[in-house]
Amino acid sequence: MSTLEIADTTIAGPEDALALAVAQALRGVRGANPLVGAIITAPDGRVLASGYHRGRGTAHAEVEALAGFNGFNESSSTSGFDPADSTLWITLEPCDHTGTTGPCTEAILASGIRTVRYAVADPTGPDGGGAARLRSAGLDVGQVDAEQARRAGAADLNPRWMLARDSGRPFVTAHLAQSLDGRVAAVDGTSQWITGPESRRHAQSVRSRVDAIIVGTGTVLTDDPRLTARDAAGRDLPRQPVPVVQGRRAVPAGAALRGGDSWLHVEDHDPQVVLDRLTAGDNAAGTTVSSAWPHGGTRPGHVLIEGGPTVLSAWMGAGLVDELFLYQAPLILGSGLAGLDLPQHTTLSHALHLTLDAAENGAISRLGDDVLLHYAAP
Amino acid sequence: MSTLEIADTTIAGPEDALALAVAQALRGVRGANPLVGAIITAPDGRVLASGYHRGRGTAHAEVEALAGFNGFNESSSTSGFDPADSTLWITLEPCDHTGTTGPCTEAILASGIRTVRYAVADPTGPDGGGAARLRSAGLDVGQVDAEQARRAGAADLNPRWMLARDSGRPFVTAHLAQSLDGRVAAVDGTSQWITGPESRRHAQSVRSRVDAIIVGTGTVLTDDPRLTARDAAGRDLPRQPVPVVQGRRAVPAGAALRGGDSWLHVEDHDPQVVLDRLTAGDNAAGTTVSSAWPHGGTRPGHVLIEGGPTVLSAWMGAGLVDELFLYQAPLILGSGLAGLDLPQHTTLSHALHLTLDAAENGAISRLGDDVLLHYAAP
Repeated sequence: MSTLEIADTTIAGPEDALALAVAQALRGVRGANPLVGAIITAPDGRVLASGYHRGRGTAHAEVEALAGFNGFNESSSTSGFDPADSTLWITLEPCDHTGTTGPCTEAILASGIRTVRYAVADPTGPDGGGAARLRSAGLDVGQVDAEQARRAGAADLNPRWMLARDSGRPFVTAHLAQSLDGRVAAVDGTSQWITGPESRRHAQSVRSRVDAIIVGTGTVLTDDPRLTARDAAGRDLPRQPVPVVQGRRAVPAGAALRGGDSWLHVEDHDPQVVLDRLTAGDNAAGTTVSSAWPHGGTRPGHVLIEGGPTVLSAWMGAGLVDELFLYQAPLILGSGLAGLDLPQHTTLSHALHLTLDAAENGAISRLGDDVLLHYAAP
Repeated sequence: MSTLEIADTTIAGPEDALALAVAQALRGVRGANPLVGAIITAPDGRVLASGYHRGRGTAHAEVEALAGFNGFNESSSTSGFDPADSTLWITLEPCDHTGTTGPCTEAILASGIRTVRYAVADPTGPDGGGAARLRSAGLDVGQVDAEQARRAGAADLNPRWMLARDSGRPFVTAHLAQSLDGRVAAVDGTSQWITGPESRRHAQSVRSRVDAIIVGTGTVLTDDPRLTARDAAGRDLPRQPVPVVQGRRAVPAGAALRGGDSWLHVEDHDPQVVLDRLTAGDNAAGTTVSSAWPHGGTRPGHVLIEGGPTVLSAWMGAGLVDELFLYQAPLILGSGLAGLDLPQHTTLSHALHLTLDAAENGAISRLGDDVLLHYAAP
């Protein structure tokens, strides 16, 4: 929110300021862009504005905070308040890059704020490097002490996003809708509607964020999904993720996912091969998508693994899932297909340890009769 | 709480009053006794006091509310306030029975309150029948309109407790500590410490409520548990549940659960047989426990199923589990023993449907790195 949601709060120092910015950042959603939060404080420590990044295509955190700050300046009874006296705190170094939004450096310079503190440096790549630009314009720009930033949680905001970026691959979200005993289908294969409408709506909102949805040939043959992103009323959204089918079996001529503008078939079981093909825009059997990623760019920035168990387990086992949304229905199937099957983990000490992820409404939420658990890979 | 936690609240009518009493009731824990909540209102609708039943051996809800009410009367600036003008609202008909606590009818009569409204009648058994007693003492006692009580949620507070009571069996709680993929042990059998210390402490608090803990011979042979109830520091509590072993294999001479005062071995797989033996105080192989239930009485009022999967599945499949605590660790085991195995449920429409249970801190809570999901059988 650009409004003064954390008004009447006063910071005691840099760690405190960053902790508030981190809390803002955690309101965002993970994906192609990192979580970023920002606050603006007065010389006496009062918090004047705050903002966070809501995901690809939306304003950056500092721009959102500045919007609230500017509104504050114009409407406040403290007219004559000088922006040059206030400080902008950001969890990540501001960008100096025009992407889907303008560079944050320009917005900061236009605001009149002269003091900027950030937690995590982002000097490389087209999105980083804003600190040098602001310094050359005469601003007081500094990185907060690393230990203070760590204690405030700023260093832990985006470890998997940075890993994905440094690996040159998209951020990977996985979806698992299961009964409370970890089954995704009954013995007879019945698998539709395990979870309720609220869970399915959330799953649709995740689809709307991604460039591609990856399923196995088994899912295509069993469920024949369209894999489209739909709004709450069930209508297809303007931007559609590219359906990607992984596996060696053929995709039937009448498969529903062939109905979109483009789709991909990667005839391999190895997630890394799928990633390589996606990144290269290569296409074994479908139409080409190299210049058709729904959110722009020549490479996908965010992909979603929707299953089934073989595909999800392969990605999970390869350490390539960054975030997991686990939708748990209040059902006991008691038998039938398990949602995950990783035969290589034979002892408890080899288990995959995830962590509850506080981003996006907190780690645990209720969706109708279901529970949504949000996990991050460590 | 007997204090005025819901002060400054005003009720608009009976449904509103009962909804507040229901919210109080849901703060309690399920078990041998039903969930019960109570509030006391002034003639203008102000809520003067509230209370809930915290479980066997503690004050009944109306007694707790009356304690707050009496404190209010003694300390309030509204001295001269006449208890006869106020109304006691209870989700369940008050008892007229001296158990571990005195009869609620006596407490109500002593308070000076002259008007009592309750939602659910409890005319049978030694614990009910208080309405007639109060009426004979000249009080205005009435049952709230059934539809209003239903809308306030009072009718849905204790369906499984009433089923258990009407079946002459104890209330049955089940415990399941699993990975997020529904496994309770890795392929090599490693099963200790799937969940963290906070989950284990909660599980200990559940143990402290029950008369008996039921496990299978497999659990005895694999884990050799003591099955004692311990405090937060790990010390054995004064009252210990009776360990009950279900199944045909022998309990080893050196088994840890033989270390307590009494234990039972029921050499059968059928949960109903186990219940019958428990209720009869019969004992095939252990020492007799018929007069040694830790919370008093000649029959167990509350038992806990701790597993393993065969035993839990048998009780779940027989419809004999009233409440399930599901402790879910942020682990993926990927293979290994599933926590539930009910081969008879072969299609989704035959799945067991549970419901999230708002009692005891809400249906969903975080316990350290784990998540606790509280489910009720429908």
